[in-house]
Amino acid sequence: MADRPAAPDRNQRSESRRQQVLDAAARCFRRSGFRGASIAAISAEAGMSTGHIYHYFRNKEAIVEAIVERDMENDAERIKALRQAPPEELFETMMRTAKECMVEPSPMTEPALLLEIAAEASRNPLVAAILGKCKRTVHQQAKEILEFGQEHGAVAPDLDLDGICLLVSTLFDGITAQSVINPLFRAEKIMPHMETILRALLLRD
Amino acid sequence: MADRPAAPDRNQRSESRRQQVLDAAARCFRRSGFRGASIAAISAEAGMSTGHIYHYFRNKEAIVEAIVERDMENDAERIKALRQAPPEELFETMMRTAKECMVEPSPMTEPALLLEIAAEASRNPLVAAILGKCKRTVHQQAKEILEFGQEHGAVAPDLDLDGICLLVSTLFDGITAQSVINPLFRAEKIMPHMETILRALLLRD
Repeated sequence: MADRPAAPDRNQRSESRRQQVLDAAARCFRRSGFRGASIAAISAEAGMSTGHIYHYFRNKEAIVEAIVERDMENDAERIKALRQAPPEELFETMMRTAKECMVEPSPMTEPALLLEIAAEASRNPLVAAILGKCKRTVHQQAKEILEFGQEHGAVAPDLDLDGICLLVSTLFDGITAQSVINPLFRAEKIMPHMETILRALLLRD
Repeated sequence: MADRPAAPDRNQRSESRRQQVLDAAARCFRRSGFRGASIAAISAEAGMSTGHIYHYFRNKEAIVEAIVERDMENDAERIKALRQAPPEELFETMMRTAKECMVEPSPMTEPALLLEIAAEASRNPLVAAILGKCKRTVHQQAKEILEFGQEHGAVAPDLDLDGICLLVSTLFDGITAQSVINPLFRAEKIMPHMETILRALLLRD
């Protein structure tokens, strides 16, 4: 009985070391690209042995999967929070959340890292499968929120929700790319237009 | 005088060999990433000596610059063609061109290659400068078309054209990313919504 607290402690320590690997890998992928970042380099960056890295992740793809899942959990939290809004304020809350996601992306979703992972997906079926799964999950979550909006009269009925979710997802991926490659880009500049188009798509007024 | 025709021939041959290097480099960047593709690998792929490659391009960044410029010329052609449309059909012509760009991107703009170049831009200031220059040029061209539309009453007056051009550019970059990373994505699925949002942004009807 005396060593009972040890288990949670050990779990906590293990989880914190796992996160440490993810952060180190993220830095290495950013610096050298997915292909250029070896497990040896990641272990040096994390200050752990390569054996330790392999204890947590069987390969670099598994690390990417954990990075993408961590990022997705964050999106899922934001989407879930929309359901807490009073239905009559759902549209405004969605707009506010969209703006927050644009202006304050979570510290985990560094756009340059997402681009690197996307580029790797084009030649690596394992990474493509990871991103594909993530896209499907987020698509489903977004669609459910719009259906919830429809049930409460906050979103127009009879919309092509799949197409609309795809367009919004396209916009968010575009923001990721623009924030890396377009020196003219500022999320604030497109925000008023984002509101115009979400109104046109979802309210039909 | 007898050897006069030789010069154009030589120029033509030189240009065709230059294009050959670009195509080979594009395949190498796609396969191994920008960092993973050596000049030696590009020369093997092109079936030329590395000396030949360096005769045309001083480094890999110069090759990327030429690939991006070739791609941009293609966009510029499409944008220029819009000016040939009768002003009263400008909006419809813009819509048609936008759809063409989405569904039949030029064979040069392979989305996966654009993503790879974008990812490299995040860690390579030379590549970032190349993309930045390209983005500024296309932005200016797009803005001039909208101004032309305003002069002819085909686009609403007093719009924030910079913000709108930025949003459209964001959408196109998003399409590039989605076509690589989202197995659910089909340009056809978002097309009707693209029309809705361009109407909302440009016509205010």
